Amino acid sequence: MLFAYGTSMPPRKATISEFREASISEFFEKNRHILGFDSPQKSLFMIVKEALDNSLDACEEHGILPEVKVSLEKIEGDEFVVSVEDNGPGIERKQVPNVFGKLLYGSRFHSFKQSRGQQGIGITAAILYGQITTARPSQVKTRRKEDDVAYDFVLGINVKENKADIHSEKPVIWDKPHGTLISIPAKGKYQVGKQSILEYMRECAVANPNATLTLVDPDGKSYEIQRVTDVLSKPAIGIKPHPLGLELGDISSMAKNTASSDVLHFLKDDFNRISDKVAEEILSSSGLSGNKKPSELSLQDIKKLSEAFKSVKLMPPPTDCLSPLGSEFIKKGLKSVYEENHPSHYGKPVSRPITVYNGNPFSVEAGIVYGGDLPNDQPVRVVRFANKVPLLYQPGACAITKAISEMDWRQYGFDQKGGQGIPYGPAIIFVHVYGIRIPFTSESKEALANVDAITAEISLCLRSLGRGVKSFLGKKDKRAKIYEKFRLVNTLIPEIGRKASEILGKEVPNLESVISKIANVVFVTEQFRKVADGVEIDMKIINYTRKNISMNLIADPPTGDYEGPDLKWEVKELEPASEFTVTFSLKGKIPDYPGTNYYFTGIDPVRVQGAEPLPADFGTETVSIIETEGEE
Amino acid sequence: MLFAYGTSMPPRKATISEFREASISEFFEKNRHILGFDSPQKSLFMIVKEALDNSLDACEEHGILPEVKVSLEKIEGDEFVVSVEDNGPGIERKQVPNVFGKLLYGSRFHSFKQSRGQQGIGITAAILYGQITTARPSQVKTRRKEDDVAYDFVLGINVKENKADIHSEKPVIWDKPHGTLISIPAKGKYQVGKQSILEYMRECAVANPNATLTLVDPDGKSYEIQRVTDVLSKPAIGIKPHPLGLELGDISSMAKNTASSDVLHFLKDDFNRISDKVAEEILSSSGLSGNKKPSELSLQDIKKLSEAFKSVKLMPPPTDCLSPLGSEFIKKGLKSVYEENHPSHYGKPVSRPITVYNGNPFSVEAGIVYGGDLPNDQPVRVVRFANKVPLLYQPGACAITKAISEMDWRQYGFDQKGGQGIPYGPAIIFVHVYGIRIPFTSESKEALANVDAITAEISLCLRSLGRGVKSFLGKKDKRAKIYEKFRLVNTLIPEIGRKASEILGKEVPNLESVISKIANVVFVTEQFRKVADGVEIDMKIINYTRKNISMNLIADPPTGDYEGPDLKWEVKELEPASEFTVTFSLKGKIPDYPGTNYYFTGIDPVRVQGAEPLPADFGTETVSIIETEGEE
Repeated sequence: MLFAYGTSMPPRKATISEFREASISEFFEKNRHILGFDSPQKSLFMIVKEALDNSLDACEEHGILPEVKVSLEKIEGDEFVVSVEDNGPGIERKQVPNVFGKLLYGSRFHSFKQSRGQQGIGITAAILYGQITTARPSQVKTRRKEDDVAYDFVLGINVKENKADIHSEKPVIWDKPHGTLISIPAKGKYQVGKQSILEYMRECAVANPNATLTLVDPDGKSYEIQRVTDVLSKPAIGIKPHPLGLELGDISSMAKNTASSDVLHFLKDDFNRISDKVAEEILSSSGLSGNKKPSELSLQDIKKLSEAFKSVKLMPPPTDCLSPLGSEFIKKGLKSVYEENHPSHYGKPVSRPITVYNGNPFSVEAGIVYGGDLPNDQPVRVVRFANKVPLLYQPGACAITKAISEMDWRQYGFDQKGGQGIPYGPAIIFVHVYGIRIPFTSESKEALANVDAITAEISLCLRSLGRGVKSFLGKKDKRAKIYEKFRLVNTLIPEIGRKASEILGKEVPNLESVISKIANVVFVTEQFRKVADGVEIDMKIINYTRKNISMNLIADPPTGDYEGPDLKWEVKELEPASEFTVTFSLKGKIPDYPGTNYYFTGIDPVRVQGAEPLPADFGTETVSIIETEGEE
Repeated sequence: MLFAYGTSMPPRKATISEFREASISEFFEKNRHILGFDSPQKSLFMIVKEALDNSLDACEEHGILPEVKVSLEKIEGDEFVVSVEDNGPGIERKQVPNVFGKLLYGSRFHSFKQSRGQQGIGITAAILYGQITTARPSQVKTRRKEDDVAYDFVLGINVKENKADIHSEKPVIWDKPHGTLISIPAKGKYQVGKQSILEYMRECAVANPNATLTLVDPDGKSYEIQRVTDVLSKPAIGIKPHPLGLELGDISSMAKNTASSDVLHFLKDDFNRISDKVAEEILSSSGLSGNKKPSELSLQDIKKLSEAFKSVKLMPPPTDCLSPLGSEFIKKGLKSVYEENHPSHYGKPVSRPITVYNGNPFSVEAGIVYGGDLPNDQPVRVVRFANKVPLLYQPGACAITKAISEMDWRQYGFDQKGGQGIPYGPAIIFVHVYGIRIPFTSESKEALANVDAITAEISLCLRSLGRGVKSFLGKKDKRAKIYEKFRLVNTLIPEIGRKASEILGKEVPNLESVISKIANVVFVTEQFRKVADGVEIDMKIINYTRKNISMNLIADPPTGDYEGPDLKWEVKELEPASEFTVTFSLKGKIPDYPGTNYYFTGIDPVRVQGAEPLPADFGTETVSIIETEGEE
């Protein structure tokens, strides 16, 4: 018996259906589209994606610079063999049948940390798909560095029992010191261009600049994407669930299964961010005794705990529990990939602080590229990433697309019918959602579920990007107007005064108080000059009111190329008709400097020209950006 | 121990993750959004949907007119109890723990027939969600007509072992002769309006006109949707897999598990549409012996069988294996729900013949409502159904939306930017995809997967609907032009002739040959008059060419109210300057008769005015419609 797996037969002419149980493998055998295997083109793509994600996760976790080679070989008709070979840590011999032959088995599911894979489904699903479409088993060769030999398995899936169906297994010599090779025969269509394997690997390279990825296509043509850095990715740290957002059932479940003998230690040891002090506060707030056994907590006790979690001050999860791409890296990634479009504006990447959804920490970072050769009459291109994995399919189902569609982009200078739907304009919007247990809409992990907390964070990022574009677009226009008014009060009025005095033969009066009376405004203006390594900017505040003024001014340079201390100034008691000037510089190639945004606080907005009131969420962005940059 | 279920703890400070297995319940406990429980609003909706779908399936299968009462009670804070009580057949006592407490257990999964539920996940998932969010169990009371008593269970889910956690069980007196009541405590938000429980129930009523559905909302307000017919739904018949589209692995799997002792009987008994004769053809084409044991078929043999399936002529699956809504019913449903918008055009519903995808028969039917008070400046409204279940969520992920977005609707008179995306216009598009094992994108069954075969069938329906709208829009305009030309040649030229003759004092010449020379065209025109029960139409073909003509003419009345034999005429050797007239009538209220479409074959299109060449897919539609109507 070559193929010992099987599904059950449908009942014959049963009018009333009978009740029966199905195994998880049987379920997916009949619902392969849920795993993403819904077309021949996509199926080859899914196999590569699952294997590649596993390789990158394993390398990241074990501190290895990834080298992954993907090759596709056409066998006959529409049958291919998809092979993925990595230099990862290898897999222990006894784990191979489970890892590759059992659905819902893996290292990620029970762990509580950010990783690409999280379900223990993907690679087994790929082998199952190969088996369904070709009736043939897959090959797995793997070697750990502590072993002298590699192990070579030929295996399929026993669908009824959800376990590996091992056809053969033998130790073999492999000159590779460590790594894994998997070869899956599968029916499919090889596709190039959009949503292709090569496109996926290119986008992977954006998020994994330290990986060398090679693709050998079915014609034997080879594409190599070289690593651009030797820096190891910092893997995310496993943490415990954060108390916020945990449901009653979650807490109850944890209490039943804890190793802690009393509630005090249960709180301190099983949750993230519950210190001795916080634990005492929770106990006091809930009225529970710290000596109680966790397994004896009643539903009422659990409710009290849950309420107490909300009443005490809990720190957000530590930043190192997540692994963002980082502002610097998003900028580089977008520049390297989209340089060919000569965009006129690279928005400053924004990143949100860590938030908690159902006890799971997550965050969002985003960037935008605007103008240049990007098409003006098409929907903006949306580039979606989740836990460093590019999402190429199911955009319509994704919370990222939803957040973009529900925002009114017209206010930021985009074309958008009725203020909803994907806006039109020369832009590429990049959004990366990362966290522990990212909620996907299905096992194929192609789209993020519309969880309010996540959509809200994405929207905040988008608004910030939109403001950047608007400000870029409005900049020159606005500056021209402000300058005109400035010229009027600063040049024309004195000139009129001079001329008038000349004609009347009188002395030129001191016009400053008159100008202040007419203008009654604080001007913020800048002048810039190109220098060898960037631009140098003189920013000037002129008080054309009749009183001393005090204000805080924040500069927000447009290109994201600014590196240095915060551009914040406190202006104190600036007298009427006097000015305050600072000079700062932006480094880098800035062919078309669009001007800097200036924001202020501490003064009545009607009194200021040339700067805007500081937006409420600006501080957050700034802080996040600086944190991220500080880490790199 | 009140709550004996549990999940595992995350490992503490493990740097390298360990491999472990998860149960299907643990998986969904952590991925509840995959089941559709991704927001508090949607969660209450999902619970109602799963219970209601089960009730309707059970009633349909057992020939019961459904009476289902849904009630929501607010307990405290954001906790509700959702109760669904039906008059279904009830569930055998020993099956209750499995049906409600075990994921992937049910009557649909292994059967091969069309039903609302198909996975054995929904209702257990609802109980699991209740347990996660409230830490409380659910109640199930059920009675079969053959039992004297009902059984009352209080149960939750043992997540680790994927089985019911029974808190209590007892026989009770229930005055209901048969039925099931399920009450699930759950955290949520009660929502009204779009995507609400009431909207779901209203759309359910469209597809289930023989059901009486009642909703009691959290304020105690009651909404009753009365049945509008006492006719029982004809349940779909369970069949065997159709050979077409089966993958090698599917056939291999069936061969391993068949009860048939040889290949001949395996073919005849285990597949749909393989008769004795076809079985012989398959054996002869594949070169296999009919006496071989199915379990001994090699991979090569399986491939030969698969090839042979494609080479023989197989009948499509029998129509009674599927249960459509039917043209008549779609029309009624759309009229009853959308009458308030006073649409000016109800498109003729279209239905496609049964097609097979991966061995699974499926089909598509669709309708459109246009004009009236429907908003002109908004995207068209898309109403999606799958196996008689309304799909209210995840439109962006759905093959129906994809098919609509990828079609260029501008050619049919809609506004659509760049010829892609949801078109704008005063229309409601209704699409129902039904079949055995409909592929959804996830377990929440909110969107159809983008399977090419299904998208293609949907597109064919849409094109037909689009043509209907275009023809409706163009009708009056076009008729005015044709009539103008007709008047020119038929009235003005003779008039000029008469006047000229009068002036010249000559006899009026026979102008017919002159007119034919000038016009050289066949006119198809109609005149209509309103009568008591509809309109009566005179259709006229006039040959203004210089030769005898022959053609086939097909009338396609616009309102869908036409009932009668096919409106097809064969015109043979119609002489120059002579005409052919027929009269037919349309019954029903036709306040604004927009004119009938006429199509022709058998004549050079440049010779015809007032009718169009028959579209390639027109015949299919017509046949399908007539089949469907014939059944009702």
